[in-house]
Amino acid sequence: MNTSTSTQRLGAAKQPMTISELRADYLAGKQTPESLIADIHARAAEVSHYNIWIHLLTNSEIQIYLDALQHKPIETHPLWGIPFAIKDNIDLAHIPTTAGCEAFAYTPTQSAKVVQQLIDAGAIPVGKTNLDQFATGLNGTRSPIGPCHNSFDPAYVSGGSSSGSSVAVGLGLATFSLGTDTAGSGRVPACFNNLIGLKPSVGLLSATGMVPACRSLDCMTVFAYNTDDANTVLSVAEGFDLTDGYSRANPYSNQTRQYGLRSGPLKVGIIPKEQLNFFGSDAYEKAYFDTINTLSSNGFELIEIDYAPFDEAAKLLYEGPWVTERYLAAQPIIDEQPEQVFPVVRQIIEQGSQPKATDLFSAEYRLHDLKQVCYAQLNALDCLLTPTAGRHFTIEEMLAEPILHNSQLGYYTNFMNLLDMASIAVPTQFTADGMPFGITLVGAALSDRALLSIANRVQQTFPLPTGAFNCPQPALTQSNVADSRVINVMVCG
Amino acid sequence: MNTSTSTQRLGAAKQPMTISELRADYLAGKQTPESLIADIHARAAEVSHYNIWIHLLTNSEIQIYLDALQHKPIETHPLWGIPFAIKDNIDLAHIPTTAGCEAFAYTPTQSAKVVQQLIDAGAIPVGKTNLDQFATGLNGTRSPIGPCHNSFDPAYVSGGSSSGSSVAVGLGLATFSLGTDTAGSGRVPACFNNLIGLKPSVGLLSATGMVPACRSLDCMTVFAYNTDDANTVLSVAEGFDLTDGYSRANPYSNQTRQYGLRSGPLKVGIIPKEQLNFFGSDAYEKAYFDTINTLSSNGFELIEIDYAPFDEAAKLLYEGPWVTERYLAAQPIIDEQPEQVFPVVRQIIEQGSQPKATDLFSAEYRLHDLKQVCYAQLNALDCLLTPTAGRHFTIEEMLAEPILHNSQLGYYTNFMNLLDMASIAVPTQFTADGMPFGITLVGAALSDRALLSIANRVQQTFPLPTGAFNCPQPALTQSNVADSRVINVMVCG
Repeated sequence: MNTSTSTQRLGAAKQPMTISELRADYLAGKQTPESLIADIHARAAEVSHYNIWIHLLTNSEIQIYLDALQHKPIETHPLWGIPFAIKDNIDLAHIPTTAGCEAFAYTPTQSAKVVQQLIDAGAIPVGKTNLDQFATGLNGTRSPIGPCHNSFDPAYVSGGSSSGSSVAVGLGLATFSLGTDTAGSGRVPACFNNLIGLKPSVGLLSATGMVPACRSLDCMTVFAYNTDDANTVLSVAEGFDLTDGYSRANPYSNQTRQYGLRSGPLKVGIIPKEQLNFFGSDAYEKAYFDTINTLSSNGFELIEIDYAPFDEAAKLLYEGPWVTERYLAAQPIIDEQPEQVFPVVRQIIEQGSQPKATDLFSAEYRLHDLKQVCYAQLNALDCLLTPTAGRHFTIEEMLAEPILHNSQLGYYTNFMNLLDMASIAVPTQFTADGMPFGITLVGAALSDRALLSIANRVQQTFPLPTGAFNCPQPALTQSNVADSRVINVMVCG
Repeated sequence: MNTSTSTQRLGAAKQPMTISELRADYLAGKQTPESLIADIHARAAEVSHYNIWIHLLTNSEIQIYLDALQHKPIETHPLWGIPFAIKDNIDLAHIPTTAGCEAFAYTPTQSAKVVQQLIDAGAIPVGKTNLDQFATGLNGTRSPIGPCHNSFDPAYVSGGSSSGSSVAVGLGLATFSLGTDTAGSGRVPACFNNLIGLKPSVGLLSATGMVPACRSLDCMTVFAYNTDDANTVLSVAEGFDLTDGYSRANPYSNQTRQYGLRSGPLKVGIIPKEQLNFFGSDAYEKAYFDTINTLSSNGFELIEIDYAPFDEAAKLLYEGPWVTERYLAAQPIIDEQPEQVFPVVRQIIEQGSQPKATDLFSAEYRLHDLKQVCYAQLNALDCLLTPTAGRHFTIEEMLAEPILHNSQLGYYTNFMNLLDMASIAVPTQFTADGMPFGITLVGAALSDRALLSIANRVQQTFPLPTGAFNCPQPALTQSNVADSRVINVMVCG
């Protein structure tokens, strides 16, 4: 199944691509942003059949960003010369935003607020990436330009809907990328491409300039090689936005200085065996139990929770009235030019015109009740830990059962935004076939840095190479942090 | 218009009824709970035509609560022997809950969580009070048992929907009472009966055992003579409830020890003149300007805000899809026995079956956008200050225009719960006719104690008698508190 060793993988980076390593190379004069972009363009051409990009920026389109670096000292610009990819439902000024649907496309005059902040900090946009159309999917095959192929084995799905953003980072065509996440779109592709997938608390990153899927639930996400990079990107990207109705201020306890290596014993919730589901994948089942056994020997006290209320909340997302938000987001195309919408996406979104307000209020009441029960469990823990996905499907398998297998991919992810929780997908294993597997850590809203600090510890427990190319991780942050919630109570109490 | 001096007012208490004064009387042996209840029963009989009660507890129904006091030391029970009234959409064990609709009535075996906590602290339930049916109204005339009459002048509306609860306290038939508030039902009647009307942050008081009006917005409220009493009741009544989907934990910065007398200069938002509306009431217009002029001379820096986004949010409540929540709450009566519903209430609630989920999501998006703009203004202030109501209508006027005049009563109150704000109605003036007028202070969610501390200062600035009977206020809390938000930033920062 695994076609080659990582170093020989087509299109993959042949050099370290993390933020700290690129900055060191720049400062040492070993490389320039121009030379890096040229290398990325050359490698992108080798893998054009992976369907990573909807629009790869040309040299002339990229030049303004390179030129701007002349006026930005690297010392004060944490993302100086760092290439990043943008899911094509997020605006980059003067480049069309398609959401994977040509008929929907528009060309924004301004970048999304988050994109602009990254650019201001020195980051270089490389291109707009493929996605499951209107971010409706978790698998990466639901695009008119063709399925996005996995960075480890092109026969496998990339995961979606942030498919291109994950594979671009997986192959080292970008150091990090922006995705979006409503049902798991920022986490499932991270798992399938050996990446960190940071799904921040809803509202921590501005949604201004982002095409909504479910506007009340969506958030922008970050794919990166490690938690240090994810924290650096988050620190630049975050910020309250008065013009985003769902934006919210970040409290002291969740600011960037709270990131580090979470030390000491941890109470971590896990799903009881009978509530786990691997959909027939022995490889993922084995990888999961290997992972939790290793963590259990490394200070993670594993405590079984009741997953039923989480699962019930998850089912509300596609089976309940929230699909109406997708319908609103895809108007007027879905009403006036339905033939322009990818068939399986259309089939899902069209249902969204039906629910009544009574359905939505009833579902919201139930969701609030479930949230109390889920949070009561979560509040007794440092975090919850789940497999990120139960099985990794091939593209052929996915296309044979596009609704069923997609919903299986969301088994562990669909509840997160409805329950207003933060989560981080962390790679932990390769299967015997050399395919990546990972877990997701789940925490309360605005516990992002606490989660990232635990994810850092998980990542240091499982030393893996970066993405789909055979570079080892650089040294990650060692500075210990304890539970910030405890500190705050002690100081204030 | 004003029929008598306060001391001669029919049914009104002839002795102090505040918590501190009653406790002092009990401790001094001047009175017993039994003698107080006998007095209340006698006076209630004098004003039975006020339609205050749907069910006044009989001596035998009340006896178990009196008996229980034998086992409760007064020293450790802050509400020992304190009589309170309960709006009849809140459960008291073994007494029917009607919500003002006989066909809807049921007899709960348990009291509402808040009621039980009050009883546990020694409070004595006196009766279940009249209300605008299904809490749908702000005026107090929408009840099958007849309009509830104002405690100052029976020709005037009591205000609603918590009509009976306000008049019961106004006349001293209870020391405090529970109301509910979706659109202003815990504030408008406070204004019209010279009472504190505390509308806590949504979720601070459990809604378990309360008939919903709009379940996502409702909260239980407290009518009291002064902020000291309101704080004491709130301290007993509040508390996180896992079984209430909208319950939320109270942060340190909002706990009872934060209550006091807010000192120093205050930045207080007011509505610009051109956005004020008194609906032709010169008396209320004069009282309002007298009030703010006095406050302006007493350390309140008055800063004009833009009221338009608040007003737009307010209009969403009755003109938007939230009426669907009322429809859900009144099912199945509204579907199966619509003739059992009070005509004007039916006319409103029946509309709730119509909206679609698309309407609701669109309205929620708009509301979230408005909330950001309103909160941005609020966050720059210590609080916002509005008239509680723009005009006090007679019952005759109200019945002539039951929809129009009711909506006018909500001009300053409808936005509060939709925008997730806390508020407190505070009496400040009597008009030339001797009718009460008051203002409402508005703060961010979970700023209840900061607001109460400002309300204490307002109340001490305007010394008025308690309710509709001519007892002066006892000495109120003098211990200074500063802005708790500043303290927290300093400690944690």
